[in-house]
Amino acid sequence: MSDTDAVLFANEAFYRAFADRDENAMDALWSDSDQVACLHPGWGPLFGREIVVESWKAIIRNDESPEILCHDPRAHVYGDTAYVICFEEIMNTFLVATNVFVREGRVWKMVHHQAGPTSAQPEIEQGAPAASVN
Amino acid sequence: MSDTDAVLFANEAFYRAFADRDENAMDALWSDSDQVACLHPGWGPLFGREIVVESWKAIIRNDESPEILCHDPRAHVYGDTAYVICFEEIMNTFLVATNVFVREGRVWKMVHHQAGPTSAQPEIEQGAPAASVN
Repeated sequence: MSDTDAVLFANEAFYRAFADRDENAMDALWSDSDQVACLHPGWGPLFGREIVVESWKAIIRNDESPEILCHDPRAHVYGDTAYVICFEEIMNTFLVATNVFVREGRVWKMVHHQAGPTSAQPEIEQGAPAASVN
Repeated sequence: MSDTDAVLFANEAFYRAFADRDENAMDALWSDSDQVACLHPGWGPLFGREIVVESWKAIIRNDESPEILCHDPRAHVYGDTAYVICFEEIMNTFLVATNVFVREGRVWKMVHHQAGPTSAQPEIEQGAPAASVN
């Protein structure tokens, strides 16, 4: 698996953990580094692993939190650090996000997330099934 | 100068280039990498050095573009890559930004910028002079 594919896989794991409301997976995918940060849209900045991970767990635990779908992720890899830009679809509106990852051993871990409003939309195949079986 | 200080210096140079409306400085501080990206608040994603740098030059050239002041920058360094989180003050409102830098030779160059709305405010000493002389 190329570095780019591995980073995209880590990015997908983040949205998968959210979709599955899997607190353990969400916890595990964030870096153990003290430098973890998160800019939830409209919130103030969050700094530190414990605060950031707990914010995501609280969102996951809230049954009223809407689903988030990731579209058009693009990975930019610089050695052992990478960032992904992607769209987030939330209740038929779109945000654009930056997710930063660092390689820890053989695994890419998340160290930073920012999402905010955008005027653009991802290229989504309207009406296409998620998977087709013929 | 520590890596953290050098990254904060590069971050300051970005806002200084904007304040000075210095197109050459703005051009020079962005990485020559093809992986350059930018998420202006409310815009669609921009990819590629030429497109990103030209967007900033166009903003700088526009006399109606408001000033941007940077507050509370925090640098997170991972080897030859770093990201800075800071507040941006624009016409008495605040955004929060992620600026990603990579080390190219001895210089930290910008590869990505995202800014978006925040409910928080930086810690600004209200009414304090920029510098006091006694």
